[in-house]
Amino acid sequence: MKPIQVGLLGLGNVGGGVYEVLRRNQEEIQRRAGRGIEVAMVSRRDVAKARAMVGHTAQVVADPRAVIANPDIDIVVELIGGYDLARELVLEAIAAGKHVVTANKALLAMHGTEIFAAAHAKGVMVAFEAAVAGGIPIIKALREGLTANRIEWIAGIINGTTNFILSEMRDKGLDFGVVLKEAQRLGYAEADPTFDIEGVDAAHKLTLMSSIAFGIPVQFGKAYTEGITQLSSIDIRYAEQLGYRIKLLGVTKRTSAGIELRVHPCLVPSKRLIANVEGPMNAVLVQADAVGTTLYYGKGAGSEPTASAVIADLVDITRLHTADPQNRVPHLAFQPDAMSDLAVLPMSEVVTSFYLRLRVADEAGVLTKVTGLLAAGGISIDAVLQREADQVGGEGATSTDLIILTHDVKEGAMNEVIAQMQALPSVLAPITRIRKEELN
Amino acid sequence: MKPIQVGLLGLGNVGGGVYEVLRRNQEEIQRRAGRGIEVAMVSRRDVAKARAMVGHTAQVVADPRAVIANPDIDIVVELIGGYDLARELVLEAIAAGKHVVTANKALLAMHGTEIFAAAHAKGVMVAFEAAVAGGIPIIKALREGLTANRIEWIAGIINGTTNFILSEMRDKGLDFGVVLKEAQRLGYAEADPTFDIEGVDAAHKLTLMSSIAFGIPVQFGKAYTEGITQLSSIDIRYAEQLGYRIKLLGVTKRTSAGIELRVHPCLVPSKRLIANVEGPMNAVLVQADAVGTTLYYGKGAGSEPTASAVIADLVDITRLHTADPQNRVPHLAFQPDAMSDLAVLPMSEVVTSFYLRLRVADEAGVLTKVTGLLAAGGISIDAVLQREADQVGGEGATSTDLIILTHDVKEGAMNEVIAQMQALPSVLAPITRIRKEELN
Repeated sequence: MKPIQVGLLGLGNVGGGVYEVLRRNQEEIQRRAGRGIEVAMVSRRDVAKARAMVGHTAQVVADPRAVIANPDIDIVVELIGGYDLARELVLEAIAAGKHVVTANKALLAMHGTEIFAAAHAKGVMVAFEAAVAGGIPIIKALREGLTANRIEWIAGIINGTTNFILSEMRDKGLDFGVVLKEAQRLGYAEADPTFDIEGVDAAHKLTLMSSIAFGIPVQFGKAYTEGITQLSSIDIRYAEQLGYRIKLLGVTKRTSAGIELRVHPCLVPSKRLIANVEGPMNAVLVQADAVGTTLYYGKGAGSEPTASAVIADLVDITRLHTADPQNRVPHLAFQPDAMSDLAVLPMSEVVTSFYLRLRVADEAGVLTKVTGLLAAGGISIDAVLQREADQVGGEGATSTDLIILTHDVKEGAMNEVIAQMQALPSVLAPITRIRKEELN
Repeated sequence: MKPIQVGLLGLGNVGGGVYEVLRRNQEEIQRRAGRGIEVAMVSRRDVAKARAMVGHTAQVVADPRAVIANPDIDIVVELIGGYDLARELVLEAIAAGKHVVTANKALLAMHGTEIFAAAHAKGVMVAFEAAVAGGIPIIKALREGLTANRIEWIAGIINGTTNFILSEMRDKGLDFGVVLKEAQRLGYAEADPTFDIEGVDAAHKLTLMSSIAFGIPVQFGKAYTEGITQLSSIDIRYAEQLGYRIKLLGVTKRTSAGIELRVHPCLVPSKRLIANVEGPMNAVLVQADAVGTTLYYGKGAGSEPTASAVIADLVDITRLHTADPQNRVPHLAFQPDAMSDLAVLPMSEVVTSFYLRLRVADEAGVLTKVTGLLAAGGISIDAVLQREADQVGGEGATSTDLIILTHDVKEGAMNEVIAQMQALPSVLAPITRIRKEELN
């Protein structure tokens, strides 16, 4: 049987990995897929560079549209990234009746609804395992492995750059800026790290997981995104003393009021497996009604881990493209006509517990005032940690750190009380507040 | 569209869970599957008990063959367990053109080759996600999620009973017998716990994972199986002091010489995530060439976790039964005509490192003699731990524990040296030897 003909749009880090792994494991992959899978054509602006990588094993062109126009190509793999051109090319490939595989989380988080609708209408598959958590088959687990369940929540470490930075800050007691430079030197962070450190990349991935977990449309615009740039190593140390680690989590949860969709730094109990996921590794924790808790761990980025996910999609398409399109696995796990319109909650409605650090004057009655405000706001306290006073500035004036862990409270109510605390004369600096999840 | 009609053979703990979860999550499951999934018929010897569970929502019969004979049934779910009758019923269901879902690891480990061949010839699916690691979608991950990879090894905690016992022995410093009774009281161990504590259940599951990871036939007869009944809490304590936990692992590895297929207690570095999987939880660690290390964690048993896996298979069949049978996901991940004949290695050929505990007379030169034998056998030492001498018996005779961690060595060579050590007059008791895996 003629091998499935694959066209790669883009032959950079991931594209090169896809080409290399398909070549290296060709025999093993064919034994699984029942049919050869062959990169027949690649597009890259720098044709010479592409030619150097693939030699004459594949046709090389500069124009990605030449790949889409090639009638021999069965599956188009979009690896050029970005929004506009990628969107056009994916829609053109679908219109041309090609199955599409993409690792482009940004594209799908922004334009997924349009793209999946076009694919459904045309009866082709758009697969995107590589778009979330790299080589971890988490899309497959959510879309196919847990179909019996009512999924309750997902909490994931889904950005390796920020997890590496937080691990280093904790291990070495260094501050964010220092570690970011190291991460850039080691290649764990890009020259412009904004998407990673501000949580945007994690929010793209979380948006896709939320959609397939709860059967809601892809709506990145409604995701709350808070990065790690404001974290200081002192909070990591205090958290440690209280039995917690600080991780950048993507959390999406189904509540009676609506869907939570949020990325932010978070205290997690040190004893949880996910709290012990260090360095650039990723992990996704899923809570569902029948199976209970499951966790999926692995490399979230890199050439070959990402290629592993892209090729898994190629094998799925090879195995299943003969299925009646109405009976295939739906792109977003739920049938297009059976999506839910559960609203995404504003953060003020989201309920979590909190870690608060207040820099206060070391004088009688401060704790009473602070806890009084919490009580008046109906917020109960889980734990208090007060450090010994230390000298700051002259005149023997002393101040101290007051750390408070709260029980669950609506974020809106918490913010009001924080504003009241901030107004106290004995509170000497901006209050630090980090959300906390017990994940049980 | 008419719901898929499911017939359950057996309505005990798992069958009840399947019925309950299908009922409770009916709407959500249909939104995913694109079609209703309905338990139309159940068989149980005690018809009254079955009737009490399903009321009049399903037809209830005593004879499982009446379910297979029912032309309206699309999928037969085998949940009666055991070998002979289960084998007959599954083969009869296949012959009748039904798709089959089973949670019966013992059946597949023993008769899988025959059953999958029959299913392939008939063009029906036999799905068995529930047979390995309960609710964790590990079969799907290996068979579909990692298809790009050359899988190198799998190491799993795939028996909850033994992991619970080992966790308790470690936490409470209790001995095996005591904890086993507690596990039986709590329902974590059966009245006859042999299959669990002797590693047979784990070996059944490992045999299936090995087959789909490496594309080899299911061959339980060649699995090496060693349980936890001989473990003493003192070895758990010594291992802890050396930075290790003791787990019952199922390990299958592809080497140039052949396939390792073995279940036995094992020292694992405490810092590995899998070493921190406690209580009845399961976890499977997979090493593959492109993706690197991935780990899958969750409940390995129980009514609803197992039902979660059974129903995932029902949804897969509902979604994909229209695919050309030659193009569906192969039962054992590899195409039937592309299986490998890699031989399973005898244990004497297996290479691991070892933990050795020798009870020796507290006299000069013992360590020299022992290490001399290791050196002569070409076995290098990773670490030595010698306890202070303690009084045993009268006459002021004293003895002490000598703990040795070796580097990698062939098991055959290790056994020869252990026999030589055992023959030393200063070695006062049978030598304890536990294999060790660094899992990196």
